[in-house]
Amino acid sequence: MNLPTFSDIEDAYLRIEAQTHITPVLTSRAIDKITGAEIFFKCENFQKVGAFKFRGACNAVFALNAEELASGVATHSSGNHAAALALAAQLRQTQAHIVMPQNAPEIKKKAVVSYGGLITFCEPTLQAREETLQKILEQTGAQMIHPYDQKEVIAGQGTCALELIQQQDDLDAIVTPVGGGGLLAGTSITAKYINPEMEVIGAEPQGADDAAQSFQKKQRMPSLHPNTIADGLLTALGKLNYELIIKNVDDIITTPDSTTIEAMRLIWERMKIIVEPSSAVSLAVILDNKEAFKGKKVGVVLSGGNVDLQHLPF
Amino acid sequence: MNLPTFSDIEDAYLRIEAQTHITPVLTSRAIDKITGAEIFFKCENFQKVGAFKFRGACNAVFALNAEELASGVATHSSGNHAAALALAAQLRQTQAHIVMPQNAPEIKKKAVVSYGGLITFCEPTLQAREETLQKILEQTGAQMIHPYDQKEVIAGQGTCALELIQQQDDLDAIVTPVGGGGLLAGTSITAKYINPEMEVIGAEPQGADDAAQSFQKKQRMPSLHPNTIADGLLTALGKLNYELIIKNVDDIITTPDSTTIEAMRLIWERMKIIVEPSSAVSLAVILDNKEAFKGKKVGVVLSGGNVDLQHLPF
Repeated sequence: MNLPTFSDIEDAYLRIEAQTHITPVLTSRAIDKITGAEIFFKCENFQKVGAFKFRGACNAVFALNAEELASGVATHSSGNHAAALALAAQLRQTQAHIVMPQNAPEIKKKAVVSYGGLITFCEPTLQAREETLQKILEQTGAQMIHPYDQKEVIAGQGTCALELIQQQDDLDAIVTPVGGGGLLAGTSITAKYINPEMEVIGAEPQGADDAAQSFQKKQRMPSLHPNTIADGLLTALGKLNYELIIKNVDDIITTPDSTTIEAMRLIWERMKIIVEPSSAVSLAVILDNKEAFKGKKVGVVLSGGNVDLQHLPF
Repeated sequence: MNLPTFSDIEDAYLRIEAQTHITPVLTSRAIDKITGAEIFFKCENFQKVGAFKFRGACNAVFALNAEELASGVATHSSGNHAAALALAAQLRQTQAHIVMPQNAPEIKKKAVVSYGGLITFCEPTLQAREETLQKILEQTGAQMIHPYDQKEVIAGQGTCALELIQQQDDLDAIVTPVGGGGLLAGTSITAKYINPEMEVIGAEPQGADDAAQSFQKKQRMPSLHPNTIADGLLTALGKLNYELIIKNVDDIITTPDSTTIEAMRLIWERMKIIVEPSSAVSLAVILDNKEAFKGKKVGVVLSGGNVDLQHLPF
């Protein structure tokens, strides 16, 4: 398998750093007091398009040469990867073709259009998404950019931890959410290369726990009827990401949506920043397991800030 | 009248800088594109207690000597000044006595208690607040710290613009909300001392426009039946602040709550930060008057981030 290495992540960072924001690392005495840990929040909600997804999409698009880009890029996504790919394509002056389910939130459709992406709607099933995308690829000759299970995408997501460790070099652990696994896999490559002692932990909703199950059984398990408020984490764990996670990650811990909502509210009220539910799963895992994190310096990746203000969970 | 000068603001900054956060200045390309101005948002929502009010309360409390502090400090406030004074008193290890109307939001009561403040409840009328406070002052011998119309408080609020101009030294204008007027008055002293050419503009809700009326009529007008979603701006313009504003401020512009809600939503969605409605009034004024701000570098003070997530205006 074509797995990315730390060297790919270094290349990715050089490739994308002119396009991405160096996002701030924030701390909160109130939250440290509640958890007993010393938490360094890496604020990818302030990244372009409001999510870390821009790192991976940007690296994948900027790694293509002019000829490869001529027919555009394509993906299927109802989430942040769609907007991320649209913006990355716009920056390279090529066309992004995005397959989205008809029932995708209006705000996500608007974001794609605002970056010049072309949307093709399909039925809201994985099969319809894949078939529609296949047609688009055949018709246009566009390059497929996978939302999470592709070497360049994983390498791009790994730049987030690289930047975090540059900003705070004495972390004992890093916690990231895990859905498709691109962020967790990329983070694990970076963290273990820089410091093999650093714990790398995945945080996953109980209602969409295929990564935790796969991790425990050492076998990639299917994602059956995932159901969680953390809409960015409904996707199934990718193949490449599974391999990287098994190799590098120390644990994957699940948490109920009730704790995720509590964590999201803490971040909103105490830190005055907007994060989406998927971002709050990492803090939720720490709240559920205070003893394990007590006294440790913990990096927590706040993965994104795109939330429908009309439908808040509190 | 005992009006503060720039020298008082410099003294205030030296007095409080070890206690306050240097809050960040954020920009948003999306909002710049919408307004046509170049806006530098001074994020006092990230200040301690979540509002600029901590600067003034802190300066007033830290300006007192041990003897003056022995019997504590007192105020009446249902808003951010109450929490600010409670924290400032805690830092000086003295007691804060806060008179609050019974119907004050739970979240504001909790904040005061969490900083060790003692609350005395009263009927929700200005008369009841003043009478109750008078009793507390007589019983305890505490020092009164006014929410906005007191020299040390105004000087403390003036440190916000001082810090902003240190962070961004080429502003053409600064816009702040105006309620009691402490922030606008303090800002105007700082801005006009450093650069008399810099425009200083107050932003006020149409439904609570006593400052705009007073400014136009060159006479302090009463605040009758104020009604606005910007709950921090319901207070009447103070006497000292009126004098300073007449002397220093270039204009006070009013805006309807509908634009304030639009501005608040823009800040939440585009900048991923939480601001309270009172903070959004400044951006609302810019949205209403794009021609006047076009191409200018404008400092906008985001005054606070304490908002009841259960009762959002959108």
